[in-house]
Amino acid sequence: MKICLMGFGAVGQGVARVISLKNDHLNDKYGLDVKIVAVTDTSGAAIAEEGLDPDLLLEIKSKTGKVCDYPEKGISDLDALSVLDQVEYDCLVEVTPTNIQDGEPAKTLMIKAMADKKDVVTSNKGPLALSFSDLIKNAQENDVQFKFEASVGGAMPIINFAQQTLPGCDIESIFGILNGTTNFILSRMTREGSSYENTLQEAQQMGIAETDPTQDVEGIDAACKTVILANSILGMDVTLKDVELDGISRITSESIALAKKEGFLIKLIAEVSSHTLKVSPRLVREGSPYSVEGTLNMATLKTDLADEVTVVGRGAGSIETAAAILSDLVNIWKSK
Amino acid sequence: MKICLMGFGAVGQGVARVISLKNDHLNDKYGLDVKIVAVTDTSGAAIAEEGLDPDLLLEIKSKTGKVCDYPEKGISDLDALSVLDQVEYDCLVEVTPTNIQDGEPAKTLMIKAMADKKDVVTSNKGPLALSFSDLIKNAQENDVQFKFEASVGGAMPIINFAQQTLPGCDIESIFGILNGTTNFILSRMTREGSSYENTLQEAQQMGIAETDPTQDVEGIDAACKTVILANSILGMDVTLKDVELDGISRITSESIALAKKEGFLIKLIAEVSSHTLKVSPRLVREGSPYSVEGTLNMATLKTDLADEVTVVGRGAGSIETAAAILSDLVNIWKSK
Repeated sequence: MKICLMGFGAVGQGVARVISLKNDHLNDKYGLDVKIVAVTDTSGAAIAEEGLDPDLLLEIKSKTGKVCDYPEKGISDLDALSVLDQVEYDCLVEVTPTNIQDGEPAKTLMIKAMADKKDVVTSNKGPLALSFSDLIKNAQENDVQFKFEASVGGAMPIINFAQQTLPGCDIESIFGILNGTTNFILSRMTREGSSYENTLQEAQQMGIAETDPTQDVEGIDAACKTVILANSILGMDVTLKDVELDGISRITSESIALAKKEGFLIKLIAEVSSHTLKVSPRLVREGSPYSVEGTLNMATLKTDLADEVTVVGRGAGSIETAAAILSDLVNIWKSK
Repeated sequence: MKICLMGFGAVGQGVARVISLKNDHLNDKYGLDVKIVAVTDTSGAAIAEEGLDPDLLLEIKSKTGKVCDYPEKGISDLDALSVLDQVEYDCLVEVTPTNIQDGEPAKTLMIKAMADKKDVVTSNKGPLALSFSDLIKNAQENDVQFKFEASVGGAMPIINFAQQTLPGCDIESIFGILNGTTNFILSRMTREGSSYENTLQEAQQMGIAETDPTQDVEGIDAACKTVILANSILGMDVTLKDVELDGISRITSESIALAKKEGFLIKLIAEVSSHTLKVSPRLVREGSPYSVEGTLNMATLKTDLADEVTVVGRGAGSIETAAAILSDLVNIWKSK
């Protein structure tokens, strides 16, 4: 399986790393041999029909920051779109940074790959939250596979879980903690009794919250994932603007303490059902599956027969997210 | 898909109920039409090539307690084994009571069905914990499918989850709360500060613990499930006697209070890895996925790439367990 890897930040480098770690094993287990035939970053690209060495790619990137410095195969200032015309490949792995304004350049890249009859795997929330139905339509019309497990909750495999694990049940709604940064902040406020502002600062110092934490703390990141779950699991046709949104920045340590006294925790909960799309702080019961702490993500499926089933996992992390992408590649391979 | 339903207690009746509820829907969704062509209980059997009416079966059972009272199609004193010779069917659904002495009559029924080239679905822990490799060998030699999602954790779909959801990862070990009764008792002791003896009595009054609670509180039920996970997910070849076992009957409210003060809970944890098979009370951190309360079951898979992923669900319940059986039937149908 020849892949074009578009984007070589934390997730893209994670993909190179897991391919280096697991390729021999996947070959033994599934007969799957993943070759990176092209990789791009903002500097340009590296292209090799016979496959680039993932370890060398990682080494070059860590030394010079540019994949175009890959020996003999690097090309500077080549844009990603034209790379897709210059190489034979089977699957686009699109892991450029999330853009929630217009989903670009990811959206155009993915639609081009689909038009060229290539399968697509992405971790990119932007285009999925803005143009889901458009992307699915393109995939269907071109009869290609389109997978995006890594876009929601990194290594919490909620999409495959919902689609494969209990096929005898129907899913009526989904409730989840879909953002690790806010879960970390709320958990720490609960344990330490500290204020929102101080805890956010701590999280920033620890690299868990970004310098501009808006996307996380105002619930925008969770809202993107809410849209992806609504469309992919409940078959809805919604976009980011359909989500009712309330973040955690006004939560006080007093309200958390009050809840705790009664056996409740405050969590930023995403609700997905045919009548409600909402991200907001809510009370959840201690000892319930919603009480997971730290940067963990979780999602509970309310089903018609099996009551509630929940999946919990790491919401982020380079290797963890890459593990979800690798699982999508294996699933595509197995279905052929 | 014609099924023989062997056993018509809580789980068997649940299967009839979910077929009644969902058959039209499954027909629309997957083209799957499940017909119960035979059903047995200790009274005898009911057999109909054209399919028995699941609602009528449930009505008769609740009125007289005997499936052999099914109008025109009932036969008293017919043993299950000979039923398998008297009817055309595709899949045996084996839900007779668990027997951890010798796994009978379930084991003989399943092996006969496999020899007759029929697929088999079971919720029965006994034969799986005692004769797993034997059953798998029979299924493989006869090229039939053998599924048992309902045998571990009712509607907590751990087996499908492990096998399907993250195919890019390898599973290194499993830690779980696999028994709902003991989780209920320990959770309640933690919340109420009550003694083991009083809490067990309460659980018995509520119908959550059995009159003879040995199987649950001494960890035997969890140990059976440990064996099933070891064999089916980690590819081991072990039986019940290989599990190191310690139950919850010596846990005091004092030890629970002491743990709680330090941010820990005491849970009955099953550990499954290539070097350890163990069911024993352990300290787990509050706020971790292991802190789920009540009769919930959970299992955490430690993977090579995705760190820990956890699934949580109802460990028991007639409809919930039947939902897992129905999912096995759908998976068999989809694979054909």
